[in-house]
Amino acid sequence: MNPAVDTGTRRKAVLLLSGGLDSATCLAIARDEGYDCYALSFDYGQRHHAELAAAQRVSQALGVLEHKVIQLDLRDIGGSALTDSTIDVPTEQADGIPVTYVPARNTVFLALALGWAEVLGAQDIFIGVNAVDYSGYPDCRPEFIAAFEQMANLATKASVEGYPFQIHTPLIHLTKAEIIQRGIALGVDYSSTVSCYNADIAGLACGCCDSCSLRLQGFCMAGVNDPTKYRKKRN
Amino acid sequence: MNPAVDTGTRRKAVLLLSGGLDSATCLAIARDEGYDCYALSFDYGQRHHAELAAAQRVSQALGVLEHKVIQLDLRDIGGSALTDSTIDVPTEQADGIPVTYVPARNTVFLALALGWAEVLGAQDIFIGVNAVDYSGYPDCRPEFIAAFEQMANLATKASVEGYPFQIHTPLIHLTKAEIIQRGIALGVDYSSTVSCYNADIAGLACGCCDSCSLRLQGFCMAGVNDPTKYRKKRN
Repeated sequence: MNPAVDTGTRRKAVLLLSGGLDSATCLAIARDEGYDCYALSFDYGQRHHAELAAAQRVSQALGVLEHKVIQLDLRDIGGSALTDSTIDVPTEQADGIPVTYVPARNTVFLALALGWAEVLGAQDIFIGVNAVDYSGYPDCRPEFIAAFEQMANLATKASVEGYPFQIHTPLIHLTKAEIIQRGIALGVDYSSTVSCYNADIAGLACGCCDSCSLRLQGFCMAGVNDPTKYRKKRN
Repeated sequence: MNPAVDTGTRRKAVLLLSGGLDSATCLAIARDEGYDCYALSFDYGQRHHAELAAAQRVSQALGVLEHKVIQLDLRDIGGSALTDSTIDVPTEQADGIPVTYVPARNTVFLALALGWAEVLGAQDIFIGVNAVDYSGYPDCRPEFIAAFEQMANLATKASVEGYPFQIHTPLIHLTKAEIIQRGIALGVDYSSTVSCYNADIAGLACGCCDSCSLRLQGFCMAGVNDPTKYRKKRN
């Protein structure tokens, strides 16, 4: 139940922290499991830049040892509504993988988490991916995570020298409601988090995008009052 | 022999281009195979920054359609003599993986190449890794490349929709001398390339580091005059 503490010494973990609901819960779980947590966020040109301020608040609230923000402008590559202002974020769910998919995003983010973990001497990487109440992104599925872990253990000096990496996905089989209930039990303050793809600079949510819908449904199904701050609609 | 042309339409390939001898040869091979080449380089805080100017020269000489340079400061992560000025580049070969290893570098670079390839509609990625006359980096080995390709094909919208990616490593089983002979046959001007880990701003090589040694031996074994420009030693 508590792999980090059971070894007798506290173990370090690197955690991908977007500032949204899922990654905040994932961080609370890693901390509860006894890991010393190092949070990694990306300033990647996302239109919902307010999530970075949320990541900072969550890091402070949950006592991470270091919160690193890497500058990596994925607008150079484009191909996503989240990094290209000429592609609108959809307000209705469509069939297939939505235009908010960012090409290879989790591969890139996990690759940099792997590099930092190796430098820190950490063997554990946490990512709050979820394959139940999610948008259908391929890089949130268990088979992707398993393949990344296998690749990571061939890629690195640490793994070659006998210190393999493990990618932890504690949320992957939970519903959004179960994630929220788990986070509430661990004391996560969800009013600090920002999930909306169209969040304004103050972090106020649109209430219309896929991410807002999944979040709102999650609070409803969890029987928890939704602390999300929505911006007022124009009449 | 010529997969890109055999399809009847020219195919796009993304190619990782450092500006060194291997990646220049790899680009020449991809072009010879009929691919329209898109070159990707990284300004990652490397001490041998002169390689980026070399990458630009090589791109122009070999007719790439676009040369993109992504800013990604790996000094934020550290852990390598190539990105940390407090760690000296060794002048003698030591046992094991050398301190010039950059944690997860090829994983990070291939991940971004994958993202760009997906946006371009390219299914082919070339990387000039070599597992014969090399420094022993784990992320240059065939088993790493195979694992990356498998992971990439679970990570992306394109592969889920039936357009899988292939990672090409045409140099992986060649000696350095064979690489040079191949490049000469394809018209590569190696005087444009920079391999030295300690290259100065003008691209002049130290002649002492592991990368210089492998390059010099390669030219010698290939029976080709070494066009590398070395800087004068202090007395």
